[in-house]
Amino acid sequence: MVKKFRFNTPIDTEAVVEHIEISDIGEFPLALDCAEKLKLSFTLGESDMIFGLGETVRGINKRGWIYESWCSDETNHVEDKRSLYSAHNFIVVSGKKKFGIFVDYPSKIVWDLGYTEPDECVITLDKPEADIYYIDGETERDIIRQFRKIIGKSYIPPLWAFGYQQSCWGYSKQEDFINVRENHRKNNLPLDCIYMDIDYMDSFKDFTVNKKLFPDFKAFVKDMKEHDIHLIPIIDAGVKKETGYSVYDEGHEKGYFCTDENGAEFECGVWPGIVGLPDFLNPDVREWFGRQYKTLIDTGVDGFWNDMNEPAIFYSVKGLNKALEKLDKIRGREIGIWEFFETKDTMLGLQNSMEDYKSFYHNINGKRVCHKDVHNIYGAFMTKAAGEYFEKEYGKEKKLIFSRASYIGAHRISGIWFGDNSSRWSHILLNLKMLPGVNMCGFLYCGADLGGFGANVTRDLLLRWLALGVFTPLMRNHRALGTRAQEAYRFGDVKEFADVLAVRYRLIPYIYKTFRRCSEEDDMMFRPLAFDYPDDKIAREVEDQLMLGDECMIAPVYEQNKSGRNVYLPEDMTFVKLSGENVFKEVMKKGLHYVEIALNEVPLFIKRGKNIPLAKPALNTAQLDTENLENLL
Amino acid sequence: MVKKFRFNTPIDTEAVVEHIEISDIGEFPLALDCAEKLKLSFTLGESDMIFGLGETVRGINKRGWIYESWCSDETNHVEDKRSLYSAHNFIVVSGKKKFGIFVDYPSKIVWDLGYTEPDECVITLDKPEADIYYIDGETERDIIRQFRKIIGKSYIPPLWAFGYQQSCWGYSKQEDFINVRENHRKNNLPLDCIYMDIDYMDSFKDFTVNKKLFPDFKAFVKDMKEHDIHLIPIIDAGVKKETGYSVYDEGHEKGYFCTDENGAEFECGVWPGIVGLPDFLNPDVREWFGRQYKTLIDTGVDGFWNDMNEPAIFYSVKGLNKALEKLDKIRGREIGIWEFFETKDTMLGLQNSMEDYKSFYHNINGKRVCHKDVHNIYGAFMTKAAGEYFEKEYGKEKKLIFSRASYIGAHRISGIWFGDNSSRWSHILLNLKMLPGVNMCGFLYCGADLGGFGANVTRDLLLRWLALGVFTPLMRNHRALGTRAQEAYRFGDVKEFADVLAVRYRLIPYIYKTFRRCSEEDDMMFRPLAFDYPDDKIAREVEDQLMLGDECMIAPVYEQNKSGRNVYLPEDMTFVKLSGENVFKEVMKKGLHYVEIALNEVPLFIKRGKNIPLAKPALNTAQLDTENLENLL
Repeated sequence: MVKKFRFNTPIDTEAVVEHIEISDIGEFPLALDCAEKLKLSFTLGESDMIFGLGETVRGINKRGWIYESWCSDETNHVEDKRSLYSAHNFIVVSGKKKFGIFVDYPSKIVWDLGYTEPDECVITLDKPEADIYYIDGETERDIIRQFRKIIGKSYIPPLWAFGYQQSCWGYSKQEDFINVRENHRKNNLPLDCIYMDIDYMDSFKDFTVNKKLFPDFKAFVKDMKEHDIHLIPIIDAGVKKETGYSVYDEGHEKGYFCTDENGAEFECGVWPGIVGLPDFLNPDVREWFGRQYKTLIDTGVDGFWNDMNEPAIFYSVKGLNKALEKLDKIRGREIGIWEFFETKDTMLGLQNSMEDYKSFYHNINGKRVCHKDVHNIYGAFMTKAAGEYFEKEYGKEKKLIFSRASYIGAHRISGIWFGDNSSRWSHILLNLKMLPGVNMCGFLYCGADLGGFGANVTRDLLLRWLALGVFTPLMRNHRALGTRAQEAYRFGDVKEFADVLAVRYRLIPYIYKTFRRCSEEDDMMFRPLAFDYPDDKIAREVEDQLMLGDECMIAPVYEQNKSGRNVYLPEDMTFVKLSGENVFKEVMKKGLHYVEIALNEVPLFIKRGKNIPLAKPALNTAQLDTENLENLL
Repeated sequence: MVKKFRFNTPIDTEAVVEHIEISDIGEFPLALDCAEKLKLSFTLGESDMIFGLGETVRGINKRGWIYESWCSDETNHVEDKRSLYSAHNFIVVSGKKKFGIFVDYPSKIVWDLGYTEPDECVITLDKPEADIYYIDGETERDIIRQFRKIIGKSYIPPLWAFGYQQSCWGYSKQEDFINVRENHRKNNLPLDCIYMDIDYMDSFKDFTVNKKLFPDFKAFVKDMKEHDIHLIPIIDAGVKKETGYSVYDEGHEKGYFCTDENGAEFECGVWPGIVGLPDFLNPDVREWFGRQYKTLIDTGVDGFWNDMNEPAIFYSVKGLNKALEKLDKIRGREIGIWEFFETKDTMLGLQNSMEDYKSFYHNINGKRVCHKDVHNIYGAFMTKAAGEYFEKEYGKEKKLIFSRASYIGAHRISGIWFGDNSSRWSHILLNLKMLPGVNMCGFLYCGADLGGFGANVTRDLLLRWLALGVFTPLMRNHRALGTRAQEAYRFGDVKEFADVLAVRYRLIPYIYKTFRRCSEEDDMMFRPLAFDYPDDKIAREVEDQLMLGDECMIAPVYEQNKSGRNVYLPEDMTFVKLSGENVFKEVMKKGLHYVEIALNEVPLFIKRGKNIPLAKPALNTAQLDTENLENLL
């Protein structure tokens, strides 16, 4: 049962699509304090668990930390951070009493989930202006289904988006892309997509292509398509402020950019230099921005990734000038160490500063609204601009679109990726832990940068990570400029990489079918063991295995120098190792086991009485035979 | 058998104390390339493992990453870093062939241990000027014993240094310290030491005490001693450049500070503002600096921790001026994004910059030596200044001294702590993983900041971390200014903290005896399971349990929201849980087990036929009855 409570006059985030009667606040089932901020609080039983919050750091069980919903361009994904790129304001509390809470509020929310006091949860909103949904039910999965029902069906991308994808910030010339394609092909490595990071644009201008690098872009896209490769360009939120650049000119003329306190265009520095930030909260702006994608679609491109839309701000022009003034003051005299740090921090603090977010404005139905108050829906609304245009213009399931920043609601028209992680073993596990959280919030098409975006990969790290990526709907290998090359053909014994990638294609029919079912039935693809085995005390606490669909359990190796791992079977299962066309099977009893898993093997555990279909390996989805399948068991 | 090879004329690091004949380089057992740099290389078998490198990130098995010996003030201890505070240049390769390599070289060493190629190790020294020791033996432990024998016996601190210790950057006034003492006492929490971080000094000047905060420091120290509390002040490497400050004046007059390329004192900014860096490589300077500690010892203080001695440099005066010039160039004009980043990075790059390390000089026996070429022994020689003075003046085992930066050799006169970690669950495991590595290199008195230095702790994190700290010789709770308070009395149900700390005191006789034996017999206190169970394939790869002494195995809980953990028993053992005066025992068979461990319990596994003594709990070591012990089993 979903109950909706309204506090004052909230901004419409478009997260919920079902009409729900508003209940009387007097019936609100948690402790409330609306004096100044809005605070919801409740007590936890000793073994109560909390699930949700989507894309964040730390465990599947979110208890014991303080999180903040505040879309952040955060590159150091470590456990003491509080925010990443998205705001996924839904949790399920699982104790003797089970309930879900969705806080539909577009600004900062602090979730103290047993951080200050281990048994106390306090959820704090800056302002008492929100819709809060309280959902109870018999099981976690049932509560989540009810929630998913009110927020609408999850986005389904084209089938080819389930193929293996290669990306790199640094591919710039045509030859770079052709090399990637050819190296995959000649090494028998499947591939469906190659991503175009910011390098492809003309001076980082959205919807432009650098003509020097791509003299005939349309022909290039066509050539890649003929090789069954989809090119997926990036689009950033900020539009370069440059007279003569038609996108800027039109946006400027129509007053489509966010403004500063004086009503002038807010100016900040991002990749293209000084940009205007489109006011995506205005439907006219969304319509206009969505239409811009057509320029690239007309060249044959059929997928996009939206980036920098938290929005990430390297500096504002005002902020930089202030910082330079501050630096002036330390010139030529001896300074104390605190003054030194303060001055230095001024430069550091330029990036994504709250002061900047407080200093620009949106136009919502003619009302001027400070960005800070709607920060968390900005990226989602950028992606809606694209996604809604695609559906309207080209139909459902035709274009691939996913985003870095997101808010619940955007799951109906796009996927997400988990942002700028690093080549760290711990990030394999972080990737796994995020999956059920984002599924709960409706985001089914998702995945992390396999191999890691920042830092330098090792061969074994990439192989182990790919063996998890084999199961995630978005299976993309991506890295940052200046890091070690990590395409699957960059290391010795490429056959081992081909073995793992082949497994992906063998599983695509199963993954795709499961994905569609989860979208249609408002279900999760990936679930904590706790949801399926609520009475099994050990299973409830497992944080390094997940249930996948109704058939199986995944348990990847996520530590270096290990030839296997411990795995807990909450019931009798068949342990399967897939590698190329090889399948190893062993029936195992419920309980704790050590299993050996080689670098070229993908482990999987099939539940009693269940089975999954396998396709023949293929080099891309176009060649994949999705009809003639064999049973795994 | 230890073989010594000399390449050209190395600088004497004082790491090795035994005389060993120099072997002919032609007999060097690994591949060599001395063309320009010095490169040693060898191939690894598929299941070969590598142990050592002391204080570094990542696993017990160091295979699969590229490390750099370069003492670094590094605050983000994540797995993609290459260096921390110390240079511990000793590894043991464990395969069909087992051998150790000690690279006695005081500048940067790059250890590519299967990073570039999974089966290739390449060790690169900037210059071919080093002593390289090659040690073979039957077992890892035997190789390590041989190595430890040539580097001399490990430092043994006073018994009271094995008590529980509380520290905080931010305790400043006398009352802060008294509060800590009284809060421990009234909550039945044992305590032996309270640390004084930089706040106690007068303007961060070494060997001074702020008279406003401590009007009668001697009386204060005496009062604390009467309560059986030792005060342990910090000493930083840099000496404030201030005329009238006697330490600086004497150092300046005698030319004891490092110089720049023109022979003037090298000036850099650290806590006190502009400092001179004492040239610890000069024995006269060491003698002089060591003598300065007497000022504080005469007040009754009997322990110190040496910090910032990598040396950490916030900025050099020259570097800062250059950065300000660069900033000038972007003023008042539109800049490209790369130019913005480059300018911003100039400010960021001021800290611990290689350019600065290249720009100052030492005087070694009248020879001018660039700091870069001896960087890795700087901190160790600072600590030698103290340790050697203490031994000479007060005798062995009288004073507590440990350091942040270190090099092998300093283990004879001091301990180390593992630097500025964070309140992260992953850092419990990192703490555990470092222990065998630093033991191999001779550092027995060691430990990490329990609860974590940076970031914010949670109650459960602290309890779990303390339950590991119970076994480390240095058991210190320490945190940074501005982080959440983490003294053991700061959270609800203090009894649980008292339960864990009581276990420490019950174990002190065992830990101290084991420690002494390991020092006397050149043995390790903490060993990887791989050393003790070389034929057990699962045990060899265990990275979250350690053998302690010859009697037991430790396996702490290091994940949040877990009521227990998986543990692998390489032989039948007795599982013990200690909590306050309670002891739970259960005999368990060899193999994989899940064991429940509550937040107030310390798990321990006793080998068949072994036993360990337990003391009665005590509130400090002065009150500890080390005579009347009972057997645990």
